[in-house]
Formats: sequence, structure tokens, C-alpha cells
Amino acid sequence: MTPGPEDVFDAEPAFPRGFRGASRRCGIKEAGPDVAVIHTDPPAAAAALFTRNRFPGAPVVVGREVIRGGRLRAVVVNSGNANAATGAEGIRRAKRMAGAAAGELDVPVAEVLPASTGVIGRPLPVERIEAGLRGVRGELADDPVETARAMMTTDTHPKALSLRVGDATLTVLSKGSGMIAPDLATTLVWILTDAEWSPGELDGMLRPAAARTLEMLSIDGDTSTSDTCALLANGVVGPVDPEAFAGALETALERTCEVLARDGEGATRLLRATATGARTEDDARTVARAVVESPLVKTMAYGGDPNVGRLVMAVGKCADVEMDPGAVEIRLGGIPVFRRGAIAGVEPSRIREALRGDPVEIAVSLAAGDARAVAWGCDLGEGYIAENAAYSPS
Amino acid sequence: MTPGPEDVFDAEPAFPRGFRGASRRCGIKEAGPDVAVIHTDPPAAAAALFTRNRFPGAPVVVGREVIRGGRLRAVVVNSGNANAATGAEGIRRAKRMAGAAAGELDVPVAEVLPASTGVIGRPLPVERIEAGLRGVRGELADDPVETARAMMTTDTHPKALSLRVGDATLTVLSKGSGMIAPDLATTLVWILTDAEWSPGELDGMLRPAAARTLEMLSIDGDTSTSDTCALLANGVVGPVDPEAFAGALETALERTCEVLARDGEGATRLLRATATGARTEDDARTVARAVVESPLVKTMAYGGDPNVGRLVMAVGKCADVEMDPGAVEIRLGGIPVFRRGAIAGVEPSRIREALRGDPVEIAVSLAAGDARAVAWGCDLGEGYIAENAAYSPS
Repeated sequence: MTPGPEDVFDAEPAFPRGFRGASRRCGIKEAGPDVAVIHTDPPAAAAALFTRNRFPGAPVVVGREVIRGGRLRAVVVNSGNANAATGAEGIRRAKRMAGAAAGELDVPVAEVLPASTGVIGRPLPVERIEAGLRGVRGELADDPVETARAMMTTDTHPKALSLRVGDATLTVLSKGSGMIAPDLATTLVWILTDAEWSPGELDGMLRPAAARTLEMLSIDGDTSTSDTCALLANGVVGPVDPEAFAGALETALERTCEVLARDGEGATRLLRATATGARTEDDARTVARAVVESPLVKTMAYGGDPNVGRLVMAVGKCADVEMDPGAVEIRLGGIPVFRRGAIAGVEPSRIREALRGDPVEIAVSLAAGDARAVAWGCDLGEGYIAENAAYSPS
Repeated sequence: MTPGPEDVFDAEPAFPRGFRGASRRCGIKEAGPDVAVIHTDPPAAAAALFTRNRFPGAPVVVGREVIRGGRLRAVVVNSGNANAATGAEGIRRAKRMAGAAAGELDVPVAEVLPASTGVIGRPLPVERIEAGLRGVRGELADDPVETARAMMTTDTHPKALSLRVGDATLTVLSKGSGMIAPDLATTLVWILTDAEWSPGELDGMLRPAAARTLEMLSIDGDTSTSDTCALLANGVVGPVDPEAFAGALETALERTCEVLARDGEGATRLLRATATGARTEDDARTVARAVVESPLVKTMAYGGDPNVGRLVMAVGKCADVEMDPGAVEIRLGGIPVFRRGAIAGVEPSRIREALRGDPVEIAVSLAAGDARAVAWGCDLGEGYIAENAAYSPS
């Protein structure tokens, strides 16, 4: 499933020391838990990344303000309603939601990060959240999977993983390409650790790690109004080796990308594209993303159709990337399928076999430099259409 | 169907004076005519635009050389095989194909533009074309629809239109979003006129007109290795009013975009997005394209799902476009659905009605300047998956 050894991850994900979580049903979704709370004692240093969409959801607007303090005591997340495109009233409700969590957990509201995922443009039923959170403090527990469950929209399973870095734990809760009802896919990622870092150090580690992982994840090329990723470090176990921590962070986010892509809407398999030999990292990123985002590549993977010309098209459409077309090589599942400007003569049965891989591995060598990048995506089949063309909830 | 009056176009498309065409079955596709020839007497001044894909098909490589002469006597097109990713042997076969047409039509091979559309990475069976074209000169006729028929891949109908500009005729033959077998969608557009222009004048008119039309057409955001558009003027009727001609050229290409988008793979309806009030034309183009290319907008149109938050998402994901989120307005079929930063309260039944329109009209006002752009696309449904996930021909 992952390039690294499977067993770097804990068999049963656990929260780092000082972190606990809970999930509650507040009646926003039709069924199941729909509000999650994560709490840390002591307070955590924190950094966060938010969607670049020009119409961010209200919790994103509030969250950007909160994260400026560099310190978090809690995260509160609802599914079933994105609280986006809801104007000034949406902002007020996002603040009320953070306030409700702050009150229940007895922490400052300025240290509570709110997040919402679900349908856009509907008023957030914040009274239900206020009522539903009552007494949640007594339910805080060390069960990241159950906490992640309340963030699910059309995710088919809750997503949590943890691993060790020295004496510290690094735990990632995420929700992905699911849609509620249906609506936009939103990625929410909470990275928690009991290692000790300053907010500036966290920001300095999170940005490059996310650039190589979460920013290279694409289900359909669309950009949610709610995407949020935060890194919280409460310092309970003290400092850890910086290099080891940075490595673990990237490993955890790579795995998170795999998990999110494989659970993409209607997806039946994971796509992983690696671009090497690029002149710049930007060039490598452009090519790797173009491959996993191409609808024709995605439908090829879905259908198991050995039409490798589509890979050539997807690489070639990166018109501004430096490459010598005669020197570019493309491999599918390790098999060279394009070199010296021509499709290689490969038995269609071998191509079909490679397309049955999970992940479907596509490697592009650009022969223009030393930079590389990896992108994660998924195939495109009837399931995506079925989930996205259906009628929205009334 | 089109914003302009329907009757600017001839009820029965005709070739301009001096142009004739023919179609032949050469046995490249499984059935039907698969090689088209267009001939002009006298020779035509010509300009052309080619795909920006970094792995252009062999006929594109040859065609770029041919068009440098600024003069064409014929175009020869096959469907069923793209002659792309075929290396040096592909170039030789593209030249043989042009040579076969030149021989049959008794014109210089340096004035024959070859084009191919179909599956990528298979050797072009050029002997079949050489054999199949024998005697084609005797079949040249004034039937652009029959000529266009031989260019079809999974296009559901041949595409030709003509209109009058003063004493001159402007005729467009095109093929679009069809796929053979299946493979990449390729757009081939031949614009023919008996007006008199120099190659430089043609180039100066074609580039801006295509930038506002063909370059704003997107079926799935992928870029074919074979896209080609050429403008041929044989001067039989002499000069015409430049402004009237430029207007007719743009009208003809707008209609061509509509026809191609509506016949997109598996498409059930046309999408037309207009961005106004942009600071720059580039900004307007980015936003209009983002709307018609968004898979979530496309599936919304397919399903008639009144999830207008997706339009907000698609506009907002243009992170580098200047806009004041609070001043942006979005209309769907004329109905304001987003303004002052919030989804407008519109009855879902009215939204569903607007989504049944053909075209589905989306208008975005950015309130940042005076520039505007229009983009054409189509919805995304099971038909696209079915055509693209199927097994390729052996």
C-alpha cells in the first residue's frame, strides 16, 4: 500500500499524550455522529494551512484569525454542512460553534479552531451543535478512529493513523473525498503530536511537507472552500530529533494521501504518478499532477484499457514544462511504454496487468534535470458520476 | 442554440467557390469513410494553429513545416489513427499520406496539409490510404457535410456550416470530441473562404478569433496531440470588408464551439460560461474555463442537481484572479444565485429549471474591471465514462 514499511504505523491508532477526542450526534447529518471535538491539555503550539479558494467557508475565515495566536486548546468539526457562502451570519455561527466547544471544554474561545464540511450555502444549525455538545468533556477518550468518524461525509471509513518518533507520537486524523448529500469534497487533516515545537517551527515543517503531499493529492481537480490542515504540538514529551520528526511527518502525510485518494468518490483504485528528471520542482509537480488529474488517464485506469497514448497526452499537455520530447520516458507499473518519441511495443495483456495494480504506478522521466515530485489520485468511473449527479438534499 | 440569429448560416452548407471535397473509405476505421480530401483551385493563402501538446502527432510536425509556405492546395485527413507517438517512421508516413493526395490531385506536396485523428501509438496503415485515394480527384464535389463525415471518430454527426460575407462564403468543417476506439478527443477545424487575404492577414485574424472561441472550448480539460485549425483563402471573389469578415469568422467559430461542445463525449447538454468585469482578459478566461471544466459543475448540470455552491467553488478556485469576494455575483440561467458573499435564497425548482436549459448559461460578474470572456463545455455523465473506460481495439 505504501512505499515505506507497513509497520512504521501503529496497528491501533492512538492519540499522543495529552490529546483526547470525542464524537457526538447533533442531528446535522441524516444519521451518525456529526460533530467531533479534539482537546489537548496542556495547550498546544499550532500552525495551519487553509484552502486557497477565494470563497472560503466561515470557519476558515475564523480559523485564520485563531491560528495567528499560535496556540490551540481544541478543534471542533462538524460534518453535514460546510457553513460556506453564508455571509456575515455564517461567521457569527462559526464563532458560536467555537464558543460552544470552548465553554464545554473550559478553554479560551480564541484557542479553539472550528471547521465544517458538507453542503455549501445552507445556514449552519448551530443551536443543534450547542445543544449536542453539552457534557462532551466527560466523553473525551483515546480513540482517534471514533473521533474521525464524526468528520465523515461520504468517506467510506474513518481515517486515523499514528506512529512513533523517538518518545513522541504523531497522529493524523483526516477526512477526504467524501461528499455529503452530495457536495464538495473537503480535506480536513489534524496532525497531533506530544513533541515540543514552537508555532514557527511547526509552520516551517508543515508547509514543505504539505507541499509534497496534501497539495499533490487530487480527486477531481476541484478545490473545496473548506480545506484545512492543522499541526498541533503540546510538548508533553519534550523535544525530539528534528530530522526524524520531519521524516515522520512526511511519511504520515504520504500515507494520509494514499488513504484519502483510495477512498475518493467512486474510486476503485489509487493512482500514483512520479515525475523525475525535471528541471525544477514546479515542473515535476505540474507533470505528476497532470497525469493523475487527466480524465482520460483516470477512465483508462478505471476500465483497465491499455491506451497508453493517454499518458503521453497527459505529459505532453504540460506545454510550459521543459522537456526534450525525444528523451522523455514513461513507465506504467515499471514497464516502459513510451521512449524515443514513440509508444513501445508492449503486449496489451501486460499493460492490462499493470492497470490492475493498486496503486497504478506511473513514472515519467523528463531528462531535463534532477527535480522530482509525486502525486496521488484515483480512477474515474460510474461511481463518481452517481455520487455527484444525484439530487441534493432538500 | 446560438446567441446570434440562427439564419446567418446557410440552411445547406456549401463550399466557397474554388473549393471541393471528397471522402473515401480506406479501411482504417472499422466502418464508414475514413479519409477526407479538400482541394482548392486556385491555390489558397493559408495560416494554421496547432496543438501545444509537447508530443504532437506526426502530421502536426509535417503540417507546421508546410504552413510556413503560407500557401495550400489541399488538406488530407484520416480518422481511425492519430499517427502520434510513432517516432520517425510516423513522420515518413505522414509525408507519404500528403504525397498520395498531392499525386492524385496533381498539386505540389509542399502545399498539402496532412492531419490524422484516432488512436495514438499505432503505425498508420499508409498503404491503405495510398490505395484508397486512387481516382479521388474525379469525386471532388460541393458537399462539405459528406467531406466532414470522413473525419468523424465518435462524433455523432458530421459538422459543417457556411455563411456569407459580402460576395464571399466562409465554410467551416470540423470534428470534435469524438474518440475512436476510444482514444483522445481531437479537434480538427478547416475554415475555407473565397475571399482574398494574404497569409499574414489570415494569421492575424485567426489567432485572436481562435483565442476567443476554439481555445475556450473544453470537453474534459485534456489536450489532444493532434489538434489543428487552418484558415484557407483562395481569393476567387476578391477582397471583402475586413471588419465584416473578422465578425463572420468569429461567429462561425463560436457556432463551431457550440456544435463541438454539444456533441462532447457522452454530453447531454451544452454549458456556456461568461465571465465579465474582470481586471484582464486572462482573468476572465481563467474563470470562464474553470466553470465549464469543473467536474462538480459538470456533474451538477448532468444530474440537474441544484447545488449552486459548486459554482461558487469553481469561481473561487481561481486563486490568482483578482476579485472582491463580497462583490462577485453569479447567475445561473439569468437567476442570481450568489451575491454579497452568500448563496441567494432561490427555490430549488427554479434552479432545476435553469439546469434543464440548453445551453446551461452561467454568468459570473467579478466587479474588478471591464474584461470579459466566454467558455463552452458540456456536462459529465455516465456516457463519458462508458466511452472512455471501454477496452481499446486490438
